[in-house]
Amino acid sequence: MTSRNDLNREKKELLDGVVSGSISFHKLDSLTDKDTAVMIRRLALEEGLEFNFDHIQNYSIDVENATKKNIENMIGVIQIPLGVAGPLKVNGEFADDLFQLPLATTEGALVASVNRGCSVITRSGGANVRIFQDVMTRAPVFRLENVIRAKEFYDWLNDPSVLSRMKAKAAETTRFGELVDVKAFVTGNTVYARFSYNTKDAMGMNMVTIATDAVLSLVQDEFGAIPVSLSGNMCTDKKPAAINNILGRGKTTIADVTIPAELVEERLKCKPETMVEVNYRKNMLGSARAGSLGYNAHAANIIAAMYIACGQDPAHVVEGSSAITTMELTQYGDVYCSVTLPSMAIGTVGGGTNLGPQRDCLRLLGVSGSGAPPGSNAKKLAEIIASAVLAGEISLIGAQAAGHLAKAHAELGR
Amino acid sequence: MTSRNDLNREKKELLDGVVSGSISFHKLDSLTDKDTAVMIRRLALEEGLEFNFDHIQNYSIDVENATKKNIENMIGVIQIPLGVAGPLKVNGEFADDLFQLPLATTEGALVASVNRGCSVITRSGGANVRIFQDVMTRAPVFRLENVIRAKEFYDWLNDPSVLSRMKAKAAETTRFGELVDVKAFVTGNTVYARFSYNTKDAMGMNMVTIATDAVLSLVQDEFGAIPVSLSGNMCTDKKPAAINNILGRGKTTIADVTIPAELVEERLKCKPETMVEVNYRKNMLGSARAGSLGYNAHAANIIAAMYIACGQDPAHVVEGSSAITTMELTQYGDVYCSVTLPSMAIGTVGGGTNLGPQRDCLRLLGVSGSGAPPGSNAKKLAEIIASAVLAGEISLIGAQAAGHLAKAHAELGR
Amino acid sequence: MTSRNDLNREKKELLDGVVSGSISFHKLDSLTDKDTAVMIRRLALEEGLEFNFDHIQNYSIDVENATKKNIENMIGVIQIPLGVAGPLKVNGEFADDLFQLPLATTEGALVASVNRGCSVITRSGGANVRIFQDVMTRAPVFRLENVIRAKEFYDWLNDPSVLSRMKAKAAETTRFGELVDVKAFVTGNTVYARFSYNTKDAMGMNMVTIATDAVLSLVQDEFGAIPVSLSGNMCTDKKPAAINNILGRGKTTIADVTIPAELVEERLKCKPETMVEVNYRKNMLGSARAGSLGYNAHAANIIAAMYIACGQDPAHVVEGSSAITTMELTQYGDVYCSVTLPSMAIGTVGGGTNLGPQRDCLRLLGVSGSGAPPGSNAKKLAEIIASAVLAGEISLIGAQAAGHLAKAHAELGR
Amino acid sequence: MTSRNDLNREKKELLDGVVSGSISFHKLDSLTDKDTAVMIRRLALEEGLEFNFDHIQNYSIDVENATKKNIENMIGVIQIPLGVAGPLKVNGEFADDLFQLPLATTEGALVASVNRGCSVITRSGGANVRIFQDVMTRAPVFRLENVIRAKEFYDWLNDPSVLSRMKAKAAETTRFGELVDVKAFVTGNTVYARFSYNTKDAMGMNMVTIATDAVLSLVQDEFGAIPVSLSGNMCTDKKPAAINNILGRGKTTIADVTIPAELVEERLKCKPETMVEVNYRKNMLGSARAGSLGYNAHAANIIAAMYIACGQDPAHVVEGSSAITTMELTQYGDVYCSVTLPSMAIGTVGGGTNLGPQRDCLRLLGVSGSGAPPGSNAKKLAEIIASAVLAGEISLIGAQAAGHLAKAHAELGR
Repeated sequence: MTSRNDLNREKKELLDGVVSGSISFHKLDSLTDKDTAVMIRRLALEEGLEFNFDHIQNYSIDVENATKKNIENMIGVIQIPLGVAGPLKVNGEFADDLFQLPLATTEGALVASVNRGCSVITRSGGANVRIFQDVMTRAPVFRLENVIRAKEFYDWLNDPSVLSRMKAKAAETTRFGELVDVKAFVTGNTVYARFSYNTKDAMGMNMVTIATDAVLSLVQDEFGAIPVSLSGNMCTDKKPAAINNILGRGKTTIADVTIPAELVEERLKCKPETMVEVNYRKNMLGSARAGSLGYNAHAANIIAAMYIACGQDPAHVVEGSSAITTMELTQYGDVYCSVTLPSMAIGTVGGGTNLGPQRDCLRLLGVSGSGAPPGSNAKKLAEIIASAVLAGEISLIGAQAAGHLAKAHAELGR
Repeated sequence: MTSRNDLNREKKELLDGVVSGSISFHKLDSLTDKDTAVMIRRLALEEGLEFNFDHIQNYSIDVENATKKNIENMIGVIQIPLGVAGPLKVNGEFADDLFQLPLATTEGALVASVNRGCSVITRSGGANVRIFQDVMTRAPVFRLENVIRAKEFYDWLNDPSVLSRMKAKAAETTRFGELVDVKAFVTGNTVYARFSYNTKDAMGMNMVTIATDAVLSLVQDEFGAIPVSLSGNMCTDKKPAAINNILGRGKTTIADVTIPAELVEERLKCKPETMVEVNYRKNMLGSARAGSLGYNAHAANIIAAMYIACGQDPAHVVEGSSAITTMELTQYGDVYCSVTLPSMAIGTVGGGTNLGPQRDCLRLLGVSGSGAPPGSNAKKLAEIIASAVLAGEISLIGAQAAGHLAKAHAELGR
Repeated sequence: MTSRNDLNREKKELLDGVVSGSISFHKLDSLTDKDTAVMIRRLALEEGLEFNFDHIQNYSIDVENATKKNIENMIGVIQIPLGVAGPLKVNGEFADDLFQLPLATTEGALVASVNRGCSVITRSGGANVRIFQDVMTRAPVFRLENVIRAKEFYDWLNDPSVLSRMKAKAAETTRFGELVDVKAFVTGNTVYARFSYNTKDAMGMNMVTIATDAVLSLVQDEFGAIPVSLSGNMCTDKKPAAINNILGRGKTTIADVTIPAELVEERLKCKPETMVEVNYRKNMLGSARAGSLGYNAHAANIIAAMYIACGQDPAHVVEGSSAITTMELTQYGDVYCSVTLPSMAIGTVGGGTNLGPQRDCLRLLGVSGSGAPPGSNAKKLAEIIASAVLAGEISLIGAQAAGHLAKAHAELGR
Repeated sequence: MTSRNDLNREKKELLDGVVSGSISFHKLDSLTDKDTAVMIRRLALEEGLEFNFDHIQNYSIDVENATKKNIENMIGVIQIPLGVAGPLKVNGEFADDLFQLPLATTEGALVASVNRGCSVITRSGGANVRIFQDVMTRAPVFRLENVIRAKEFYDWLNDPSVLSRMKAKAAETTRFGELVDVKAFVTGNTVYARFSYNTKDAMGMNMVTIATDAVLSLVQDEFGAIPVSLSGNMCTDKKPAAINNILGRGKTTIADVTIPAELVEERLKCKPETMVEVNYRKNMLGSARAGSLGYNAHAANIIAAMYIACGQDPAHVVEGSSAITTMELTQYGDVYCSVTLPSMAIGTVGGGTNLGPQRDCLRLLGVSGSGAPPGSNAKKLAEIIASAVLAGEISLIGAQAAGHLAKAHAELGR
């Protein structure tokens, strides 16, 4: 491991500068190459500590690129174990194939659990999956003089000709994003304008932030309303919110499968009736009683593992996991299972998708970069993730119905 | 990069076995050493693909250990860029020092933003932080015959002598965890018993799952009620839920700071009044209007970045980020800021905390492993993370108040 | 008071029939005049009791009419004390005048409190009020085969030509109601179609139920989907629901006023700053912390009192009171106050509006019966009620800010 | 009808005084007897109108008493039609009998619908019903200096010896109310103390407001914390709130019944499976999808009608109706039905219970005035109302399952 003594004079001076405080962590990037900057920051930190870093310096990603797009004051990387579950048969409009799912997690038993769910789904004919809506939103907030003026602004925002001009304005800022709609909400003198965009293969938060900022200048010029903030939390980004559950944000995706009764008993070791009852008393009644916005067992586990593997923003796990899981007995005694994911903010370009390991995972799924036509890769990814969540839900509810949740943790977890 | 041709005969046979389907991914672990198993899985996947993995094979973590505790069907690792923000002065009961915050993220501008918040807090005298409650919960669900029987069960669950026996039973399963309380909730004939434990330095989900499973046998023996499921979603784990916001789960932690008016103007480039107004119209009114359970700007970003850096479960970002951020003008014109985090499920032992890079980060904060006394490390971590969230909120609200959110993204993000 | 002995033979026989069980309460209506039926039911009840009714027999309303439209098995009436508060100056688009508010309540101090609020508003120039949306909704629920079929149905429901045919179909059932829009929501294989209607001066629930039932036959004929239930709770009627808060239902109405600082101090006996702080810590922070859908002090009191006085359905108090109250200090130190009422289901024809005393109250407000143009009376009523809620909020928050809430209750209440 | 010309000189002078503005509506009460005051107000209003009131002057209630306790500026009464449904067999701990339910409503078909539900329940053996908790709450809100001080206050509030002193203090203000518990909640520097009281047969809001006000002086003396407001909305009164659903407020009551399959088909004209499915897709899935806090069909209708008939506060319909309705197929093919009502704020003394017609209804149920032992009358009323809600839910879900909801409205409603 590199230590102070291994440095040449130039680098030693940089290190001294950082340790003494004359050079900031941030400034280092402009004084040397990016890999050296990473190393010097790490060494500088170590000087104040009683130990040396063992692992964060082990990376293979392109630091030059990461420094530009993903991180500041970089000192190394965190490694998250990556496993695969599959094959999972997906019957989507964009994903119509067998897939091996990349899952990055530190929770023992998770990959094994999803794997079991994949097997059950695949043997049941695969997961049906459809995308119902695909828009990324940004909702600036305005303060008007009073409700009279707020109503005038509301009417103006609902004017189709205004929308046309806004679309043109937004289009000036981006080749890919496309303003689709604006919806206004009012509270007293406060007005929220929720802008919805088609962002193709990008998750799109930055794109829509920039486009909305441009539209705001039009709003100011034409109507004279000045935003209090570019985001007024009606977007709603990275917070659990009924508005996303109801109106959707990102990819609104639903997957389902009907599991034959024999397969439930053979693979999930429980009775169809029990599985349906567990889902009902836990995911329906229990979540209702808890005042929850998530009617599922552990969608967040699969969402988090797939998002991290595929370079998505892990903070988007919040709304991405706000799922409704249903399980119903069919007239033939089989188990109909579905997951409804109203708000997956994901993409296959931008963000963490350019990092080497993450791109490996996207390529494993056949969705790296822009799709043909644009948007199809991100949609395919949405269909795969929704199907993966379905696998996770089936496996965990099955396990709880079979009564061996605790045993599984005792053996595989800690 | 290792390819099929680099393998010896024995390993080639394993690879052939996997490719042909005669050896499952899962079985590989028992047929060879763990690193080889990882490699063979990866090679097997590659045989069905038109490309080779570039990066996932680059890891330094102890695969033997990870395979036992964190992952199944491992094929490599994901690397998440790691940056530092700080120093951040924390005035806690467990964390009372200056800290450099490790943040693992792929979202450009995030570390820089938190860094700015740290600077503001530290120059304001540091973040005050207190832990108000510290319990991990698990809530099995029961079906009783009818409401009459449910009431008898409810009364039994509320009997202090029953709680004593349950505590003893739970104690048989764990050296660290301690059953603290049981609270019953009823819906029709369905009863939820929410068990609360002190789990010391462990996040504790597995510990409480196992302990609760043991207690359930006591319930069955003494009262005759059989659980439908070990978890009935009144826990509530990894779903946003009012019950966690109200009653708390994991570490219930609050941090605050008062920022002098001059510092707001100098460092955040906005007026105190504007900052308070942005927080009010966005984090209060906007979240209320959106039917949100999160009254904050981007707590999830900081929670996710700190959780991933420190080996926490990223699926816990869901409830961990369900924060309330307040900003108020003081009588002197300064800005009082606070974040209330009702439900941080975190620990410094178990889960991902044993992985090399994650342990590096925990050591950077001085919280790796069990604390002295037990529990103090996890509490210290909670105080640091809460203070980090405060830094993130101050910086973002300040940026939105200064109107340069879009510009920041355009420059630093993609 | 009439007793058995006062009855003629014919009526005595009816009474005997009812007491013996050979004549049902329900059947009585067809065997005699309605007033007699009411009396005989009451006498029959008395025969099984150890007391006589003292008051319920005292009524002046037209029982013939009430029996047809408002009540079954009538035995008398309940009397609710009616008071007036005012004058209240309202600056609406439909209500632009001074009004005396009829309030039916049994809660001592309520009328006095609203009266004080009216005085403050009127002296501040009146309440500005605007209606932002006016639709009554009904959302049947369907079960489709699976998500693939659900998506087809979703697309069909979103087809503009389908909407045209639905509008025509709905129009066959009603002269007044007009189908405006249909919005589809999907959960797994379950589809909700939320139909929105303009119902003019009627509250409209029955109208839209009947119209939607007709449209369902079209859905069945054209698409083949059969509803599980005519109402799937996405309407949402008489339950608190984020969907109503976000999308609105009935009249979405907002009222505001700016109260000069002097008036706050003189009439409300508190400081502007205190009033704003009470609203913030109670109606904003407190409601957020409580997981509430109502960000107000006591909107339900005013809504209930006005609804009962004006013949509205008191069960609609649930969503009618789901209000957001804001109070903000202006740059001049005055207090800006607003109430946002997303979901008032009210009308001036139908329901209880035909009953004598209720019609008296509607006439007092100048809104009895159909407006010219149709719809204008119900809109005027909405503007008045919203302004009344504003008065109630100002008065109560003022009282709490002045610290005499408890005193007021001790003197005026019980 | 009395008109100006019927008045003697003294009364005419009063009327002139009111019309000219020299005598306020409020002041009238002290210048003449209460009935005259009511009349003069009404006549004064008429002078500004183009019509005379037809009905509001028809009342039999004791105006002297109502003016003291229930209303200010009284001008008459509103009449609400009163019907009965029943008999309903209730198997409670306090109500164990057959009951005729008084329902005051203007919604045609409601009494008939409840009546049908009563018949089904009674023929199924009656409604089992239990009260799980019985506390009335009031939660003042405090602002502390910062989170450090908030934690000290939190610890102080959790100190058992403090609770003892608070109990003694509260007891000084009331013979009946008894402080049971205090629970503290913190958001930043804002602390909510939720006081829970046993209020016996009174609904108790005024009682607990007064008692809490007294306790606040102790808080101020001993700890030095001054409340911002006596109510901080964590109570939560008259707003829908998760805290009430989870922790309960007022009477937390659950009723259930199992309806034999034959009875479902014979009386409800639908199949057990259909009924269960309607409840599932509407009351569970639909409410979840709508972001609702009410998982029921129309609990508010029955709550409102019973509350108004029995002199309860109709604004309490808001939380009173926040019910969960479950319907499940038993192993024998019968239908298990339950309603869970977490938050009924009701009483049999005080408020509107003293008014003549309302007392008639309470006597019909055998619950007028204080019970023996104290509290038993209010509990009995809670059990009856919960059973009535169960009847209403069964009937409406049955109707929707039989597909004749629209038909019922067309025939009985408007």
